[in-house]
Amino acid sequence: VIKSIGDDCAVVKSSNKYLLMTTDTSLEGPHFTSDYTSEEVGYKALATNLSDIAAMGGVPKYILMSITLPKLDSSWIKGFYKGLNILMKKYNLSLIGGDTNKGKLSITIQVIGECKKNIMYRHDAKMNDDIYISGKIGLARTALMIKKMKNTNYLKYFKKYLHRPVPRIELGLELSKIANACIDLSDGLSKDLGLICKSSKVGANIDLDKLPTLKRVYTIIPKKRIYEVIIGGGEDYELCFTINKRYRKKIKEISDKFKIPLTRVGSITSGNINYYSKNKLIKLNITGFDHFNK
Amino acid sequence: VIKSIGDDCAVVKSSNKYLLMTTDTSLEGPHFTSDYTSEEVGYKALATNLSDIAAMGGVPKYILMSITLPKLDSSWIKGFYKGLNILMKKYNLSLIGGDTNKGKLSITIQVIGECKKNIMYRHDAKMNDDIYISGKIGLARTALMIKKMKNTNYLKYFKKYLHRPVPRIELGLELSKIANACIDLSDGLSKDLGLICKSSKVGANIDLDKLPTLKRVYTIIPKKRIYEVIIGGGEDYELCFTINKRYRKKIKEISDKFKIPLTRVGSITSGNINYYSKNKLIKLNITGFDHFNK
Repeated sequence: VIKSIGDDCAVVKSSNKYLLMTTDTSLEGPHFTSDYTSEEVGYKALATNLSDIAAMGGVPKYILMSITLPKLDSSWIKGFYKGLNILMKKYNLSLIGGDTNKGKLSITIQVIGECKKNIMYRHDAKMNDDIYISGKIGLARTALMIKKMKNTNYLKYFKKYLHRPVPRIELGLELSKIANACIDLSDGLSKDLGLICKSSKVGANIDLDKLPTLKRVYTIIPKKRIYEVIIGGGEDYELCFTINKRYRKKIKEISDKFKIPLTRVGSITSGNINYYSKNKLIKLNITGFDHFNK
Repeated sequence: VIKSIGDDCAVVKSSNKYLLMTTDTSLEGPHFTSDYTSEEVGYKALATNLSDIAAMGGVPKYILMSITLPKLDSSWIKGFYKGLNILMKKYNLSLIGGDTNKGKLSITIQVIGECKKNIMYRHDAKMNDDIYISGKIGLARTALMIKKMKNTNYLKYFKKYLHRPVPRIELGLELSKIANACIDLSDGLSKDLGLICKSSKVGANIDLDKLPTLKRVYTIIPKKRIYEVIIGGGEDYELCFTINKRYRKKIKEISDKFKIPLTRVGSITSGNINYYSKNKLIKLNITGFDHFNK
């Protein structure tokens, strides 16, 4: 065992390669709601697990699934497997084992992935590393907030970010060759970058004005809640990684190759995590998602 | 992937060895009830998974656990881990990953095991093989039935069979060198032997009078329900295996070595599964446990 609890995946050495193992449970409430189609439930349950493999720089290979269903509803199950299959086909995954039970809907998926070397751990951030974020963040939380608004016009546009997150497998694999630490943004930048900093025993300066989101977020979310959404809002499943400054040009090339924005948002320091806007220190008290203390 | 869905574990070849992977969910209702201590819940959740590794002839190595808890009750959790630890210590297992959520109590454990060779598959039963059962069966179901009786005097004696099943890891490993097919009796002999026969495209003759149980079962269970208990009652987690007749002496030695009864109860045929008592064919309609059709 190379890495046990405390990263996106466990890592076990197996002769000339490493096995990555991760597990996540999807429940109605914290992970999906009754307005999700069963296809979306299946898709997202697998996508969130694959995202953990992406964050380590691995390639997913096998999945096991333990599912608890309230009843055998064949049309629901058909949709669910359709959602699973989108990602299983894309990454050529085999469902190799499972368990089915009756009860309150709950889906636990385990993904076993592989890695040759270049595993990205949370504990590998180095002083003065650049900090990057892939894609745009705060979009899943924006969708969640639109659902609670009177005017749900924008939901059609934002729903996909919450219901169908894209695991950054190909990007993670490419980044693993050059990046130091990496994590997937499941619980929000504030919490997840905090995990990198804690594991690596470093701090970070983050430029709030550089955080990549969609302009439309600013028109939908009240100004006083904007950082809660962008920094505290999880479920974007983008990658946050730290990397030596000498790779800036290379990062630009990777961004162009994969057509995924890679935005430099700050750098690793020896202090705490500090947020800045226009060079002014901004005090924020945003903790990210916690299942037992919402 | 050597073996996918359709056996106790999935089997994946990894250079010079095989990885066994299995997952099972434990829920209140089908797997444990409110009279279980949290130690028993933890113990049994892991024991039932280890039993799947035993049935393939493997050695358990790593576990991942995804647990959903209604609240963070430290004394409950302490007991739960105490139960887990009994088996983790015994088999030197590492808990390498996991996920914690809030909701209705549900425990999903994955076990990753290893096997050098000699994997026992369900599909390997051969014509004229002897059929053996380890330990005694019908005991867990007897405990379950005592709980529903007015007189629960015997519960103290039988409860351990239901609440603390013993995974037959060491026995499975030893048997794997010589046995053909094997399965663990989680859903009852009728259903589980049926799975061996279906996978191996064979039948079986079973001598009802030889089935190993405790004498006390006959005094507790009404005569008309005795086979429902012994053949249909699951959760004993004993091993049912098929093996060439030439190993009868060796089986006796293994039984003595491990101090576990190994009882020959019948043989593999080319027909269906037939039950006999005093050489008379007995028609039984016992299907074993099914989560969606109890």
